[in-house]
Amino acid sequence: MSTILHLDSSARRTDNSESSYNSISKTLAAKFIEEWKKQRQNDTVIYRDLGQNPPDFINQDWIAAVFTDEKNLTVTQKELLTLSDTLIDEVDRADIILLSSPMYNYGMPAALKAWFDQVIRINKTFTFDLARGDAPLEPIMSGKTLVLITSTGEFGFEAGGIREKINHLSPHIQVVSKYLGVERFHEIRSEYQEFGDDRHAQSKESALDSIIKLVQRLT
Amino acid sequence: MSTILHLDSSARRTDNSESSYNSISKTLAAKFIEEWKKQRQNDTVIYRDLGQNPPDFINQDWIAAVFTDEKNLTVTQKELLTLSDTLIDEVDRADIILLSSPMYNYGMPAALKAWFDQVIRINKTFTFDLARGDAPLEPIMSGKTLVLITSTGEFGFEAGGIREKINHLSPHIQVVSKYLGVERFHEIRSEYQEFGDDRHAQSKESALDSIIKLVQRLT
Repeated sequence: MSTILHLDSSARRTDNSESSYNSISKTLAAKFIEEWKKQRQNDTVIYRDLGQNPPDFINQDWIAAVFTDEKNLTVTQKELLTLSDTLIDEVDRADIILLSSPMYNYGMPAALKAWFDQVIRINKTFTFDLARGDAPLEPIMSGKTLVLITSTGEFGFEAGGIREKINHLSPHIQVVSKYLGVERFHEIRSEYQEFGDDRHAQSKESALDSIIKLVQRLT
Repeated sequence: MSTILHLDSSARRTDNSESSYNSISKTLAAKFIEEWKKQRQNDTVIYRDLGQNPPDFINQDWIAAVFTDEKNLTVTQKELLTLSDTLIDEVDRADIILLSSPMYNYGMPAALKAWFDQVIRINKTFTFDLARGDAPLEPIMSGKTLVLITSTGEFGFEAGGIREKINHLSPHIQVVSKYLGVERFHEIRSEYQEFGDDRHAQSKESALDSIIKLVQRLT
């Protein structure tokens, strides 16, 4: 039995009367879960829609609390860390993190960044030790697989693509996911959304096909 | 007379009794303004602390509103766009954008991303035209200067540095600032915060020195 943490982050929903308003990344992630359940119906899925329910922004009191020894935390500080504790526990339980994200302004939605800022936390997801020299951070968790499903308006963000150097979505997520114990990274892209042409239709089709193949590989 | 839009984005304040808790990026940006005012006391400064007062996350109704013709907007939609209208107007008025940002998890704070997601907006800061082929977006504003002041725990994020490829803070901001009419980009970095050693002290000193020199160049 595996546990999948399924996180959506688009501001869009998938139940609009006009289907072209629906989130592509969310629709594709739902397809991944549907395919997975066909193979492994008893696996556990933890679901969060970060787009509809964005995590709180961190603030100075939150930062002070995470740098306080657990045994010295006040009741107020413990309350301030409740959401972070819950989100980290969900990551900890997951074997696979399925993350869907549209590209907003060449990076992740603010709501998804708010999630990462709540979740990547000293002595919970990484340790810090100056004895390690100039690379003092190390992840605590290990062995996880991240499946990232992205939707972009433009195209060419892949390695070697014409927009590779301005892609601050998937390379950024890959960098930070190390501190969630991610050791295997898969990305499935749907592109060309803003062109609304055949290339877009083909890209969505190709993403669906890749999802089916990836589920076969991972199950 | 010039107008400076001064945006801070750290979750930290600068009035802590223990000075080491204070935001470095905010302290340096305040120094920039102090130096500027010595040279050009009549210039206008518009100030926002995005860390203390983060903009709302965008949602599906917001997206629907920005894609609606201005003359067809409902009263509710107009209200939903009020914050975005205000923030864009501040950018429009600015000759110089002074932006201070700590690096959180190799990128910008979620609160700063929320600001960009509110501000970069079709027919307000960019136009979209498929007649332009595969690069359909163009900025509307022009001629602005961005001064970016960053603070990082680690080091080596500059071009050619050991962490250049995992820097999703300043290169990301440079990419999106094009859509705010930014044509000149300056970055001043304070590094090594988490090491708390001589390198950190020197880096802060060097940043202060660079601020004084940059103010001299720009005034």
